[in-house]
Amino acid sequence: MPTATLDPAPASRDGHRPPPREAPYYRPAGREVDVFARCHARGLPVMLKGPTGCGKTRFVEYMAHTLGRPLVTVACHDDLAASDLTGRWLIRGGETVWVDGPLTAAARQGAICYLDEVVEARQDTIAVVHPLADDRRILPIDKTGEIVHAAPGFQLVVSYNPGYQHAIKDLKPSTRQRFVTLDFDYPPAALEAEIVAHESGLDRARASSLVALAHRVRHLRDQGLAEVPGTRLLVATARLMAEGIDAEEACRVALAGPLTDDPDLLSAIADLAAATL
Amino acid sequence: MPTATLDPAPASRDGHRPPPREAPYYRPAGREVDVFARCHARGLPVMLKGPTGCGKTRFVEYMAHTLGRPLVTVACHDDLAASDLTGRWLIRGGETVWVDGPLTAAARQGAICYLDEVVEARQDTIAVVHPLADDRRILPIDKTGEIVHAAPGFQLVVSYNPGYQHAIKDLKPSTRQRFVTLDFDYPPAALEAEIVAHESGLDRARASSLVALAHRVRHLRDQGLAEVPGTRLLVATARLMAEGIDAEEACRVALAGPLTDDPDLLSAIADLAAATL
Amino acid sequence: MPTATLDPAPASRDGHRPPPREAPYYRPAGREVDVFARCHARGLPVMLKGPTGCGKTRFVEYMAHTLGRPLVTVACHDDLAASDLTGRWLIRGGETVWVDGPLTAAARQGAICYLDEVVEARQDTIAVVHPLADDRRILPIDKTGEIVHAAPGFQLVVSYNPGYQHAIKDLKPSTRQRFVTLDFDYPPAALEAEIVAHESGLDRARASSLVALAHRVRHLRDQGLAEVPGTRLLVATARLMAEGIDAEEACRVALAGPLTDDPDLLSAIADLAAATL
Amino acid sequence: MPTATLDPAPASRDGHRPPPREAPYYRPAGREVDVFARCHARGLPVMLKGPTGCGKTRFVEYMAHTLGRPLVTVACHDDLAASDLTGRWLIRGGETVWVDGPLTAAARQGAICYLDEVVEARQDTIAVVHPLADDRRILPIDKTGEIVHAAPGFQLVVSYNPGYQHAIKDLKPSTRQRFVTLDFDYPPAALEAEIVAHESGLDRARASSLVALAHRVRHLRDQGLAEVPGTRLLVATARLMAEGIDAEEACRVALAGPLTDDPDLLSAIADLAAATL
Amino acid sequence: MPTATLDPAPASRDGHRPPPREAPYYRPAGREVDVFARCHARGLPVMLKGPTGCGKTRFVEYMAHTLGRPLVTVACHDDLAASDLTGRWLIRGGETVWVDGPLTAAARQGAICYLDEVVEARQDTIAVVHPLADDRRILPIDKTGEIVHAAPGFQLVVSYNPGYQHAIKDLKPSTRQRFVTLDFDYPPAALEAEIVAHESGLDRARASSLVALAHRVRHLRDQGLAEVPGTRLLVATARLMAEGIDAEEACRVALAGPLTDDPDLLSAIADLAAATL
Amino acid sequence: MPTATLDPAPASRDGHRPPPREAPYYRPAGREVDVFARCHARGLPVMLKGPTGCGKTRFVEYMAHTLGRPLVTVACHDDLAASDLTGRWLIRGGETVWVDGPLTAAARQGAICYLDEVVEARQDTIAVVHPLADDRRILPIDKTGEIVHAAPGFQLVVSYNPGYQHAIKDLKPSTRQRFVTLDFDYPPAALEAEIVAHESGLDRARASSLVALAHRVRHLRDQGLAEVPGTRLLVATARLMAEGIDAEEACRVALAGPLTDDPDLLSAIADLAAATL
Repeated sequence: MPTATLDPAPASRDGHRPPPREAPYYRPAGREVDVFARCHARGLPVMLKGPTGCGKTRFVEYMAHTLGRPLVTVACHDDLAASDLTGRWLIRGGETVWVDGPLTAAARQGAICYLDEVVEARQDTIAVVHPLADDRRILPIDKTGEIVHAAPGFQLVVSYNPGYQHAIKDLKPSTRQRFVTLDFDYPPAALEAEIVAHESGLDRARASSLVALAHRVRHLRDQGLAEVPGTRLLVATARLMAEGIDAEEACRVALAGPLTDDPDLLSAIADLAAATL
Repeated sequence: MPTATLDPAPASRDGHRPPPREAPYYRPAGREVDVFARCHARGLPVMLKGPTGCGKTRFVEYMAHTLGRPLVTVACHDDLAASDLTGRWLIRGGETVWVDGPLTAAARQGAICYLDEVVEARQDTIAVVHPLADDRRILPIDKTGEIVHAAPGFQLVVSYNPGYQHAIKDLKPSTRQRFVTLDFDYPPAALEAEIVAHESGLDRARASSLVALAHRVRHLRDQGLAEVPGTRLLVATARLMAEGIDAEEACRVALAGPLTDDPDLLSAIADLAAATL
Repeated sequence: MPTATLDPAPASRDGHRPPPREAPYYRPAGREVDVFARCHARGLPVMLKGPTGCGKTRFVEYMAHTLGRPLVTVACHDDLAASDLTGRWLIRGGETVWVDGPLTAAARQGAICYLDEVVEARQDTIAVVHPLADDRRILPIDKTGEIVHAAPGFQLVVSYNPGYQHAIKDLKPSTRQRFVTLDFDYPPAALEAEIVAHESGLDRARASSLVALAHRVRHLRDQGLAEVPGTRLLVATARLMAEGIDAEEACRVALAGPLTDDPDLLSAIADLAAATL
Repeated sequence: MPTATLDPAPASRDGHRPPPREAPYYRPAGREVDVFARCHARGLPVMLKGPTGCGKTRFVEYMAHTLGRPLVTVACHDDLAASDLTGRWLIRGGETVWVDGPLTAAARQGAICYLDEVVEARQDTIAVVHPLADDRRILPIDKTGEIVHAAPGFQLVVSYNPGYQHAIKDLKPSTRQRFVTLDFDYPPAALEAEIVAHESGLDRARASSLVALAHRVRHLRDQGLAEVPGTRLLVATARLMAEGIDAEEACRVALAGPLTDDPDLLSAIADLAAATL
Repeated sequence: MPTATLDPAPASRDGHRPPPREAPYYRPAGREVDVFARCHARGLPVMLKGPTGCGKTRFVEYMAHTLGRPLVTVACHDDLAASDLTGRWLIRGGETVWVDGPLTAAARQGAICYLDEVVEARQDTIAVVHPLADDRRILPIDKTGEIVHAAPGFQLVVSYNPGYQHAIKDLKPSTRQRFVTLDFDYPPAALEAEIVAHESGLDRARASSLVALAHRVRHLRDQGLAEVPGTRLLVATARLMAEGIDAEEACRVALAGPLTDDPDLLSAIADLAAATL
Repeated sequence: MPTATLDPAPASRDGHRPPPREAPYYRPAGREVDVFARCHARGLPVMLKGPTGCGKTRFVEYMAHTLGRPLVTVACHDDLAASDLTGRWLIRGGETVWVDGPLTAAARQGAICYLDEVVEARQDTIAVVHPLADDRRILPIDKTGEIVHAAPGFQLVVSYNPGYQHAIKDLKPSTRQRFVTLDFDYPPAALEAEIVAHESGLDRARASSLVALAHRVRHLRDQGLAEVPGTRLLVATARLMAEGIDAEEACRVALAGPLTDDPDLLSAIADLAAATL
């Protein structure tokens, strides 16, 4: 799968990077491609909302390819410091020299900068993107005094899973109101079966059975299943089946096990699998 | 949009920076321009109070241009250390050398120093501005022993959103009492429509409809909408409409989505949009 | 306003600094000048107790000038480390060299060292001043092994606002019992009007009206006003009036706004201003 | 016992490391070897679930040998930082040079990377493995800008003890759903006796008695024994017996003592030992 | 007042330091001098228990002079790290070199090492003294691998104020049980008056009145006075009186003010002063 | 008292260190010497359980001498980092060089590594010993990529006081189950008297009286005495008596004072001392 990368050596970061050459496999479920492209044209930041494993990351890779822009991805987490995004001072040849972080590099190149699971980062880290996410399109770097003006083509994209109930973690309104939001969900059954078959190499009939099972498992949420299977989980299960593992065993280790440790729920899923596959 | 910047290379920071050349687009709603100018003349620090996206940042840029002063902006956050404002020691040619932070640089140049969302910073970080915010107009730098005397023209400006209910975060009285306060709110309807049309390129009639919708949505606060749409959100929506996106779709992704994840509130906004636009 | 400063370059810190040349404007309200001078003569540390903006800082500047001693001011805050007071190791010419902090520098020079809002610092940071605040008059520096003997004339002064109710912050008895305490409050009405007129350039009659208003506003404390206006706030309001801003507007932005966000209290103050000025 | 190791000197890390030469002693209890091998073939990450001391670590060593891949083990804990996994900047010959961490080294070599007791690490540290644990198989290194593409053969394996009740610690669904799960438990009695005898050198009869004792002790869980003896504990006890220590004494110091401090439970275990051995 | 000091330059720390030449002024109240001397002879660590300002520090200085040992004092606080006691690595001439901390330096020299207010330090910092406080008399330094054997004459002394009620702070039994304890309290009235007169230069009659007042104020503890005046506070008050300040004013600023902010207690103390002096 | 030490200079750490030459004074109370020796022979880690001051540390020194192995002791505490055990990077001659920590050094030399009061260390620090405490006997060092194989003779020993009730601190089962446990308690009366006499130089009769007193004081635990006197406390008391201090005074300062601040308990102990000695 092609992915745009920044050059590994910081020294060569000034060069503009080409967009991914091969199109990532992505099947649109609505008008998300059109809206995203128009946001890009107007420099509007975009937020992708949706559950785990429904294709948000793949969509960004697809759009970067379609729009011909490099893609810079940052996985957000509690420990991410503002300087991990903007850059830091390093010692080179006895001198302290500045090295751009991924956000700064993306702004200079006009890349799409994707902050994955943005709600995991601390609010104060995220605040550093504010001036890039409104009309100013600038990135003031406190540590050097420089103000970076984002190159044309630069766009900020974040992802967000509203299903997680974080009592103490939420985006500030002053952050959220800077992003156009696109809703994502699991694809319709026929499309999801097509995706599972394409990604796993499993035949279409068994892929459809798996998707039917997933729909029944997703109803277990009312019986206490905290998380339901995403498309990514179906693809993993299908791959084991394509490798020759028995369907019920594959469901047990690759679909039920990753969702829960609860013996009752595990056997409920096993029953559904026995009845469906 | 022109913005005053500090020189990117710290080495050239001694030079005084020219103010922004083109006037930022700003439409006064009251006497704020006059009061601000007189505070500047007397060296009084100013606090801008008001909700998200109502034009506080744009106002500061406008005043910096009007008064012919450089503008230094700092986005406040929990992790901002006093040394991010005052400066730090770096290693250069084997020596530890001092590099001014944005507050120090602004004080030396006689710039306007704007601390955006000041309440997000820790109280103890903010305490570092106290000696600059009273008659002394000095900045003692613990780490070097230097006492910087603010150049003529230097002015401290902070912004503050009183609508946020931070149980544990508030400005100390000894900080607040150093600032003259200017209240901001969303502009009157006709002025807001003019701004939306000017900033988005959308025609005046549709811009007026959007503003009418915003007024109705702002009344949803009583039904549990924690945040209401600011002018910035209307501009983003208008831009998508000007790009050819259907008005209701544009409202869904650019106005409703950024405000809430609640299905009831989302459909209430959709109903208002269908009825208004 | 003259202020004693330490030399900006650490390298020249060995030299003794002259006291401020011009006397800061200060009007005694009681016997504080005499008591302070005698404490200085006997090397007794002093604590200034009183509300925000009543002139504690100005008093210390005045005494430094009167006693002919340099003045070193440190604004205390949660993040102040013991090494910010005593000093730190820096790298110079490839060597780690020691640079005195403000407390150490003051002890060597025989300066007055003023720790402003001492209760904001952590108790364990403040503990570092203990050996300087009793008969020993020494500062043991853990990080170098040196024991600095305070030069004649050195005096420790701290300020403290007993009105703040910090559940978790208080000075330890073993700290408090090292300081002679001087109580400060707002000056009597006639004296406060004289100060406001002198500092703002406003005529004496309007200054007196402002002070009368302040007295009425200070009674609002019983109706929920957490903080009441200090003299500094009156001076800021008077300056705007002297700049030509309408008295009621000046009170709104420079006296009421800095005190509260509560609409009821804001309009109560506006009513008092309308009735008084 | 052979164990694949990384070269001690970071400088020689580029070289590919051979897999362990001698097969670690491991006796399969189900189909875990086959499922693991097929996951490896498809690049699917694997999670091993099971109680303390039941052989999870040994299984990974066995699979690394069977599949002919080097093995990189990381013991997870609260203090593990993302940079402990990905790498860090060091100073060499006056330059800041990058040194790969164990995860990066494993990705470059196509090794099996085993994160032992993954739930002990902070969620935000674990988030760094996400892009390696889906189709992308990449490791973006924020601190250098490099994106490492995992070499063929690279596989991520984690272990997890679901019996620990961590109120505040749990894997995020977005992490768990990236792993195929294999369940582990204590081996059946005959197999466990064979393992104990093989590992300790104790005769088969006494090893069987020990396993019988373990089964009875494991029933004490209902009487308040928080943890029950794993196979590793039986092996330690058997070794002391093989050294000539009396069986009851060996059980007291090597089986009962490590499980509890409670006098009632200790004497209950002693009674069981007296009755069983 | 003579005080033993370590040499200011770490480089010259190897030299043994002479004890203080002049005897500090100390008046024994019981058998503390004899017991301390015998503990020193047998290398037993000593803990001084007693309230604020009753002479514990002065006693240690006196004993150091009497026993002819150098004295190394460390004021304990929350931030004191083990390496502040044992030492740290510094960069000198491009090399990382080790510099002893005060505890290590004292152990090498056979000095008396006094940890003032030991309960303020974290328990885990204090744990570093354990091997010096039993028969081993060694200090293992983790960071260098060295084990320092304490020189003859080395003795560990700590002070502790049992009156403070620290819910979360207490010495561990494994620490306390290493120290012989000496109880301190305010001296008997006649002796306290002699000390106050000697230290302040005030005449004996007025010193006796002050001590009488202190005894009455100390009874206010039952009426809510959290802390009562120590001898040090009486000395400060007496010095102001010796400087010519009126007795009641001196009591107000130097005795009552340092004890409380409570208006009722302040006026109760003023009444007692008026009645007693 | 002889103690095995690591060489003070890290540079010479490669050399194997001789075991202690003189046998530390230790009197076995049960079969602990035999069990320990057999654990050493089989490479099994050992945990010593018992109250404060009952001889655990002395026992380890005795076993190191008996087995002819060097001894490396680490006092555990909250701040102990994994790198304090494994080692750290230092700068030497401009290069970053690795210096082994005590655990690594012990593993390379085949020393006995004794972690004193292991429960005081954070669980995640202790996790670093896991791979050394099972069959692998390896120490993977994340920071260098090296895997250290423990030399023959290496043994891990920890001590633990089960009497402390740490709500939030306990060893993880996955840690505990790696250690054979040896229980320690105060020695029988005759043996304890012999030890006290030997260590203090006091005559046997008075030593026996002291032990009799200790037995009576240990019964005060039911009346609220949180900690009871260990053998070490008796030795300290006996030493003061041997120095000529009166028996009751010696008990007051060296036995009662270190145990409690409670006046009732202090006088109960004084009464027992008067009745017993």
